Amino acid sequence: MPGNKAVAYREPGVVEVVDIDYPTFELRDGPGVNPANVGRKVPHGVILRTVSTNICGSDQHMVRGRTTAPPGLILGHEITGEIVEKGPDVEFLDVGDLVSVPFNIACGRCRNCKERKTGICLNVNPDRPGSAYGYVDMGGWVGGQAEYVLVPYADFNALKFPDKDQALEKIMDLTMLSDIFPTGFHGCVSAGVGVGSTVYIAGAGPVGLAAAASAHLLGAAVVIVGDLNKERLEQARSFGCETVDVAAGPIGDQIEQLLGEPEVDCGVDAVGFEARGHGSDSSTEHPAAVLNGLMEVTRAGGALGIPGLYVTGDPGASTEAAKVGSLSLRLGLGWAKSHAFTTGQCPVMKYNRGLMQAILHDKVQIAKAVNAQAISLTDAPTGYHEFDEGAATKFVLNPNDYIKAA
Amino acid sequence: MPGNKAVAYREPGVVEVVDIDYPTFELRDGPGVNPANVGRKVPHGVILRTVSTNICGSDQHMVRGRTTAPPGLILGHEITGEIVEKGPDVEFLDVGDLVSVPFNIACGRCRNCKERKTGICLNVNPDRPGSAYGYVDMGGWVGGQAEYVLVPYADFNALKFPDKDQALEKIMDLTMLSDIFPTGFHGCVSAGVGVGSTVYIAGAGPVGLAAAASAHLLGAAVVIVGDLNKERLEQARSFGCETVDVAAGPIGDQIEQLLGEPEVDCGVDAVGFEARGHGSDSSTEHPAAVLNGLMEVTRAGGALGIPGLYVTGDPGASTEAAKVGSLSLRLGLGWAKSHAFTTGQCPVMKYNRGLMQAILHDKVQIAKAVNAQAISLTDAPTGYHEFDEGAATKFVLNPNDYIKAA
Amino acid sequence: MPGNKAVAYREPGVVEVVDIDYPTFELRDGPGVNPANVGRKVPHGVILRTVSTNICGSDQHMVRGRTTAPPGLILGHEITGEIVEKGPDVEFLDVGDLVSVPFNIACGRCRNCKERKTGICLNVNPDRPGSAYGYVDMGGWVGGQAEYVLVPYADFNALKFPDKDQALEKIMDLTMLSDIFPTGFHGCVSAGVGVGSTVYIAGAGPVGLAAAASAHLLGAAVVIVGDLNKERLEQARSFGCETVDVAAGPIGDQIEQLLGEPEVDCGVDAVGFEARGHGSDSSTEHPAAVLNGLMEVTRAGGALGIPGLYVTGDPGASTEAAKVGSLSLRLGLGWAKSHAFTTGQCPVMKYNRGLMQAILHDKVQIAKAVNAQAISLTDAPTGYHEFDEGAATKFVLNPNDYIKAA
Amino acid sequence: MPGNKAVAYREPGVVEVVDIDYPTFELRDGPGVNPANVGRKVPHGVILRTVSTNICGSDQHMVRGRTTAPPGLILGHEITGEIVEKGPDVEFLDVGDLVSVPFNIACGRCRNCKERKTGICLNVNPDRPGSAYGYVDMGGWVGGQAEYVLVPYADFNALKFPDKDQALEKIMDLTMLSDIFPTGFHGCVSAGVGVGSTVYIAGAGPVGLAAAASAHLLGAAVVIVGDLNKERLEQARSFGCETVDVAAGPIGDQIEQLLGEPEVDCGVDAVGFEARGHGSDSSTEHPAAVLNGLMEVTRAGGALGIPGLYVTGDPGASTEAAKVGSLSLRLGLGWAKSHAFTTGQCPVMKYNRGLMQAILHDKVQIAKAVNAQAISLTDAPTGYHEFDEGAATKFVLNPNDYIKAA
Repeated sequence: MPGNKAVAYREPGVVEVVDIDYPTFELRDGPGVNPANVGRKVPHGVILRTVSTNICGSDQHMVRGRTTAPPGLILGHEITGEIVEKGPDVEFLDVGDLVSVPFNIACGRCRNCKERKTGICLNVNPDRPGSAYGYVDMGGWVGGQAEYVLVPYADFNALKFPDKDQALEKIMDLTMLSDIFPTGFHGCVSAGVGVGSTVYIAGAGPVGLAAAASAHLLGAAVVIVGDLNKERLEQARSFGCETVDVAAGPIGDQIEQLLGEPEVDCGVDAVGFEARGHGSDSSTEHPAAVLNGLMEVTRAGGALGIPGLYVTGDPGASTEAAKVGSLSLRLGLGWAKSHAFTTGQCPVMKYNRGLMQAILHDKVQIAKAVNAQAISLTDAPTGYHEFDEGAATKFVLNPNDYIKAA
Repeated sequence: MPGNKAVAYREPGVVEVVDIDYPTFELRDGPGVNPANVGRKVPHGVILRTVSTNICGSDQHMVRGRTTAPPGLILGHEITGEIVEKGPDVEFLDVGDLVSVPFNIACGRCRNCKERKTGICLNVNPDRPGSAYGYVDMGGWVGGQAEYVLVPYADFNALKFPDKDQALEKIMDLTMLSDIFPTGFHGCVSAGVGVGSTVYIAGAGPVGLAAAASAHLLGAAVVIVGDLNKERLEQARSFGCETVDVAAGPIGDQIEQLLGEPEVDCGVDAVGFEARGHGSDSSTEHPAAVLNGLMEVTRAGGALGIPGLYVTGDPGASTEAAKVGSLSLRLGLGWAKSHAFTTGQCPVMKYNRGLMQAILHDKVQIAKAVNAQAISLTDAPTGYHEFDEGAATKFVLNPNDYIKAA
Repeated sequence: MPGNKAVAYREPGVVEVVDIDYPTFELRDGPGVNPANVGRKVPHGVILRTVSTNICGSDQHMVRGRTTAPPGLILGHEITGEIVEKGPDVEFLDVGDLVSVPFNIACGRCRNCKERKTGICLNVNPDRPGSAYGYVDMGGWVGGQAEYVLVPYADFNALKFPDKDQALEKIMDLTMLSDIFPTGFHGCVSAGVGVGSTVYIAGAGPVGLAAAASAHLLGAAVVIVGDLNKERLEQARSFGCETVDVAAGPIGDQIEQLLGEPEVDCGVDAVGFEARGHGSDSSTEHPAAVLNGLMEVTRAGGALGIPGLYVTGDPGASTEAAKVGSLSLRLGLGWAKSHAFTTGQCPVMKYNRGLMQAILHDKVQIAKAVNAQAISLTDAPTGYHEFDEGAATKFVLNPNDYIKAA
Repeated sequence: MPGNKAVAYREPGVVEVVDIDYPTFELRDGPGVNPANVGRKVPHGVILRTVSTNICGSDQHMVRGRTTAPPGLILGHEITGEIVEKGPDVEFLDVGDLVSVPFNIACGRCRNCKERKTGICLNVNPDRPGSAYGYVDMGGWVGGQAEYVLVPYADFNALKFPDKDQALEKIMDLTMLSDIFPTGFHGCVSAGVGVGSTVYIAGAGPVGLAAAASAHLLGAAVVIVGDLNKERLEQARSFGCETVDVAAGPIGDQIEQLLGEPEVDCGVDAVGFEARGHGSDSSTEHPAAVLNGLMEVTRAGGALGIPGLYVTGDPGASTEAAKVGSLSLRLGLGWAKSHAFTTGQCPVMKYNRGLMQAILHDKVQIAKAVNAQAISLTDAPTGYHEFDEGAATKFVLNPNDYIKAA
């Protein structure tokens, strides 16, 4: 049985590479595993040798100590891999297949999965609907920033690439299918982005950039990205986005300079609960700032897509209200404009096949848009650190050396 | 030229019946008329002799002094009438036609109207998108709680009843088409109510009851209405709803007793910004209480329809935040459940024709559901007062005696 | 191991009750089983003791000899049962559960199933997308007009009733969830039926009547059912439908008498390829008659739902064109009216849970609408015969005596 | 009052440039004007000085003598112009505005217009729902292949370009907004084209090429265009389409060579009723050939968009059935694949604003895709002739010399 190196959370600000057990077709006890899930049999699972696995902004919430994640929790929910073993109930996948794994784990058998709401599957997390690999309070499925990982309900969850060689050539793009590309795309779709739309995306981190690339793919006329981080804004401009420096003055004014009017058709929140204030206020956290800003700059009749994560509890928040996940929202403003708001985890499976097709047929360069950069598993701690510092880079771990230098 | 008695707002808590000018095809100056609208020509308008015009909960916001409505503002946006004159650009309506008038005034020519978003028409209110008759900050179109009223863009706005005699027979039902029936229906539609849904409606006032009747019409399996007002809950039970007394304990517990689980598929907020707390907290205003409660009892993957009015400013609010229309919402909870939220004025025109058909073919008894009661125009002050006191009654003014005793 | 009596097709016009093997978790060879499916393992299956199983109009196509069904094929795709055994991969169902089984077999793991298109699952029928129990050219899954039946991919396919006793009380309604109720409902949904619609349903057989009940449930203002069979029209009138005798003159004229105009909003084809002509032409088959008639009476902008079965080949057809499934359609007429047409097997799983809720909460009386009548398995031949003769009855087989006399 | 040169139909195969009256705000009698429309007042209209007006494939149906169009009928329904006069009811447009005019005339006040179904407006054509400029049996609104043209209900119908100079620079693209760009786009939207789709478009005439450009804009992965005309296929390849020569063998085989499977996700019929056979059969008309072919190559669960025109009567057709607009369709095949079919005139107003934005922001080069070429009004007869001969060119008439040589 091979060894299995993996990235673990140790304490606030610290991740480390550790040796863990090679997976079996059972969810065994370990850091963060829900007791009700311990011993769960996974005959429907496959074991993957990881091809690529990305560091995600939502991993940072845990690493910054903003959650109750226990030490030793294995991180990683953005997983692409090659099947090395399959359970007896896997019927339509084979050893050797290369697959993308949606970050949300879904059973494919509950009411929500049948309704395509795979982000809130009822059967995989004993705590509440919805699950993910390597994430606190999500049932305890072991993370994929590792050499090997178990994927349950594989026939349902895994998206097989049609051609292995072609897939490896485009792996830096395809690796984004497990989370940020569909997540950004979902933000745009739920914000109503279509052909000819004007779009404002709050946040130029990887999800924001993926949303921007998605907006282009959906035919948007103008895609504007706002952030405080000048390097990330530069990255957004590199593939045809307009940008707004939210430290430089009211967003609406900057939009007006671009469009001739201070409003856009569609607003996307790619920031979430760790939002900071705008303008002179931008050095402290203002968890409602992004959403209130979006209501201001989104036209009457427009919609807000909210892929940015908001949490039910945030012990590290700056206010009592934010500690229980409450935000002081200007709902009256949104109501006056008949806004619609869509929240929640992206149901990846709704989008990943189409986005894969777009990648395979060269309709989008998502790796370039998010500035993907492959690093070794051992370099994960550095990757986490640089990403946290605001690097305009999406780090892709390469645990088994599938990704070759270009 | 006939006289024209009408209901005017005088001061907080006081409305009175006054004599105003008979309408002409021009919007003349008067209390609450936006200067930019003064003198606006209305060749596309009709003058109606009012058949029925209802007192609405949102009128109460003005009458309670919670807005900047000026003394003398003529109230009334729920209007049904007979055409007595038509302007030169009215092509498809005739004198003598009986019509229902959507409370939102819409030009039928702007981008939003073309997209069916008639609640936020761009051309009728110089202040912002969206307008209504007899309402503060809505452009100054004169209210319809009067013997005669001007309806602009009549070919677009007015819904003609196919048979006049039949319409007069069912007038107590048809009068609800101008606002609360479509508004309640929109709340249900945007909450995703369909055949077999379980629904919780917060608020048993007329809009809540109309939402409940709508939910039944849409095929809901179980319709639960919550309120503090026992008389209104009794009214809800009279047509097959289950009820929750929000003063009697956690809503989820009460829902669990009814359904065997503490959650419903769909949540409707028929209360709005003057919400009170739940349980022991129910005597003071808690503007976020309804929405936070709905997130709690709506299942993951469910949606919230929010026809209840939230405002951009509320000088009379109990907190500084509420004064600028901010609410402390548990968005983290909604996000974890992938909730979608739909706000705003109901685009009446999307629904009123279908609902008229349902009334004319006896598929719904909306007048009975909301306990409609006709009173004379002169009795309007009493109606306003009783409604404000919480009467489980929808008051219908009968200015020209079209409505005969049954 | 218990015996297993079942209904088999013998020759045109003849069905018989035969003894077959008790099912195992494997699809064994037999009449109509696709060679590529022989020996297929079914660890994800359950074995049901049949509670109820209905005779369907589409069974008649086989029994009349209009297909290539081989002698010995076990019939029956409308199945409700109690789980008596489960395979090792069944995780969320238990022995003793009472379940409704969608007639279309679906894997829950292919692209189409993930897109909710369970009527055209890619993995269960080697011949082409889509499958069903007990049906020719559908892969060879053994029919359920039997004492016991195997249901594959049970976690995905089976709909569990929440309360066993309650379910047995309402079994005559719930048995319709496996096919005709969702099928009729799908016809209405795809025809755009909503609150206030006027609807014309061609065909007053069980699917037509189920469509009519569905239209009522969806809030239709007027539901009109057309047929040649007076007894079936009488049945339609028994629950509030209007009717058109298609032998009695142009359908449009009859609709005009009912509605004041010769057109409806929505058209449903509940007849399919064995359609007969209208008016004086009604004694011979005219496979395009129903669809051409629907285009005539459906308004511009309306839609046609086509749950009625059309086939790719019909050796017994009256014309060369019909033998290869070609119809002489007045598409020019439909085009001028901007009609949309939706064809195909109903994806039962999209609707059955909501319809179950509507039944359990007494929002619909589907058994009464289709005049359901329970008969013993031994009486199946009589049931087939009477149904073929045009009885206004939906026959429900009762193989294990779960259904008690009322 | 200026003169007004215009293009008139004279006899089969012949159009000519004639002098007609300058328009007034009234629909006067003339060739093809419906008697019920004669004398109709148009106070809501504007008079345009034509900037550009295109020759359309559907004009050819008339010119080839395949309709009952009378001699003298003024052609042209693809109109872009500058407002030179406005009627008293025009409120939101001004003299000097540059506007695109949807080919379908719509009142903006009827049920269908309110439902965004502007292709089947109920109030503009006394014969039946739906109208267009310069077209037989469409009410008699005078065509726009002229120096000046009257546009009724202008506030509703006209799409104003935000910047006049910018618009004139891009006029060869913007001129496509009046018909073929939205029409091709609608074909794609109703065929379900989205990000990652594979699409087969039957027909490489201007509508087919516009559909192909639309499919790209919507994010399609692969866009395949089929035709018999090699020059037009070459044109399709010029902007990134794959092509199928339908004379060269089965379409499915050619698709398989491109995609590895013989089916696409989405099918678009951009041919219509004058379709020819495929393969060796391609020299004669086979009106059902395109649709039957599309059913064959569109996957189960896919949809067919049918912007290609089918007519209710075609005196020049090759079969008795086709003469009354009947086609021998393999509906059984479509049914087995659960296909949905959307027919009818494109409701231009649903799409033209977004497509304008896409043009103005350089997201699409529609003029290049359809090989637009400006010619003088006097050259219209030549343009008609060359287009009929199969030139891979979209001819744009330039009656008032707004279009300058590049």
